[in-house]
Amino acid sequence: MTAPLLALLDGTLADVTHPLIRADDLGVVRGDGVFDAALARRGPDGEGIVRDRDAHLDRLARSAAILQLPEPDRAGFGRAMDALLAAWDFDAQPEAVIRLVLTRGPESGGDPTAFALMAPISVGVLRERAEGVSITLLGRGHDGDEVASMPWLLPGAKSLSYSINMAAKRHAAQRGFDDVVFVSPAGQLLEGPTSTLVVDRGGRLLTPPQDGILASLTLEHLMAAAPGAGIEVAFERLEPADLLSSDGAWLLSSGRLVAAVTSVDGTELPRSPLDTELRRILEV
Amino acid sequence: MTAPLLALLDGTLADVTHPLIRADDLGVVRGDGVFDAALARRGPDGEGIVRDRDAHLDRLARSAAILQLPEPDRAGFGRAMDALLAAWDFDAQPEAVIRLVLTRGPESGGDPTAFALMAPISVGVLRERAEGVSITLLGRGHDGDEVASMPWLLPGAKSLSYSINMAAKRHAAQRGFDDVVFVSPAGQLLEGPTSTLVVDRGGRLLTPPQDGILASLTLEHLMAAAPGAGIEVAFERLEPADLLSSDGAWLLSSGRLVAAVTSVDGTELPRSPLDTELRRILEV
Repeated sequence: MTAPLLALLDGTLADVTHPLIRADDLGVVRGDGVFDAALARRGPDGEGIVRDRDAHLDRLARSAAILQLPEPDRAGFGRAMDALLAAWDFDAQPEAVIRLVLTRGPESGGDPTAFALMAPISVGVLRERAEGVSITLLGRGHDGDEVASMPWLLPGAKSLSYSINMAAKRHAAQRGFDDVVFVSPAGQLLEGPTSTLVVDRGGRLLTPPQDGILASLTLEHLMAAAPGAGIEVAFERLEPADLLSSDGAWLLSSGRLVAAVTSVDGTELPRSPLDTELRRILEV
Repeated sequence: MTAPLLALLDGTLADVTHPLIRADDLGVVRGDGVFDAALARRGPDGEGIVRDRDAHLDRLARSAAILQLPEPDRAGFGRAMDALLAAWDFDAQPEAVIRLVLTRGPESGGDPTAFALMAPISVGVLRERAEGVSITLLGRGHDGDEVASMPWLLPGAKSLSYSINMAAKRHAAQRGFDDVVFVSPAGQLLEGPTSTLVVDRGGRLLTPPQDGILASLTLEHLMAAAPGAGIEVAFERLEPADLLSSDGAWLLSSGRLVAAVTSVDGTELPRSPLDTELRRILEV
């Protein structure tokens, strides 16, 4: 993997291979911070743009509020994104992910640490977008409903404490699966480690209620645009059997956008008749 | 808070105020790494020592294995600890915590990041050791038993993804409590965000089974030494009512060692008749 571009909140680029962060930064020693990730590509006029830019800045601010971090410097993150977009070679890499990161700063006191990274969408991710993903269902150990009512469990925040999400993806990969959907102890489908599940049940698109799971901006985009295309999208409790007997399913995320679920623990899923239309909606 | 001392695995000290870590280190952007924390003080011959040094290095290695990180450089962490101990002013600060940190390294590839930090035990922590702590019980959203059987949830690992633990402590502090004990959805007492619960029930010391919670080295120390003092220590499932009707309780941790629980959500607990003996055992 090539090293990402790095920008600071004053709008300057920095060499990512040079250390930026103190050893005692709470983002390191406690995973105590937040991030957000957005897709960057060429806009209609050829300039680089960040998809749903304001919505990502809004979500970063919501995540920071949940962790009781200072409000993110919105103008500063804007300058950092502009610097990255200006430096990016969209001819060589037409799509990239920009990550905004904010930590609580050094444990012994000091300002929060903030920066933005930009890396190309990998060939593997583009292949998953085109060809779909095999998934495995893994227990998440907690119910979304219960977590939603316990703010100290940080429901709905994109915190930097993602080691379990990464471990679940490794676990799946080692067993030959591309991705994961988490299941609650009560048998409800929740979300992927870095994605949101959408299921086609008889032409209706259904997605798990966002209790204790992350509010997906790609889903928000879909929900806003789908009715105009005559497609209903609704929150509904889903169990594995609903997925296995569905007319197709997808994982949504900001970078990969959409990946069809080709199989669930080895059982093949059909490609939904709505696949083309859903992609058309999300690509706008 | 004063800035900690920082040592690298080659045995040199470094200035902690200078950046050490890349912005794209997985320890930062994913909380993807492990740590361990040990108490440092003067040994019998006046030299600085790390309490249960080998046990902490062993647990760091177990945590790394659970996260499928490379095996920690044991000799290197030993050199780092020696450098910290040699540089520490034990006259000015008789007790300190040494933290060993290992991350997966830069996302785009490269070696793991490893270092050790040493900071004084704060006056507040020393006061808690002497005077005890008020606690509040907070839901953890998951059962230890269930998590224990799901390796992708990283049971038993001290990962760097501690944002929930930190949030629970903030939540408690804002409501006037010193610390937290987590409770499972089934109503079982689990552990503190950075400590282990021990309860005196009629002269027997009981602690929750270590399923899906962290194996405490201070507890291990107690379990090894208590029988010689005629005290039984056993794993047993405990509910809030068992704590509230107990003859006393403590939170154990490597730095604070032991803090008596003075109250649970406002209900006072007695000081256990075994308090002095337990401290004598743990202080050795």
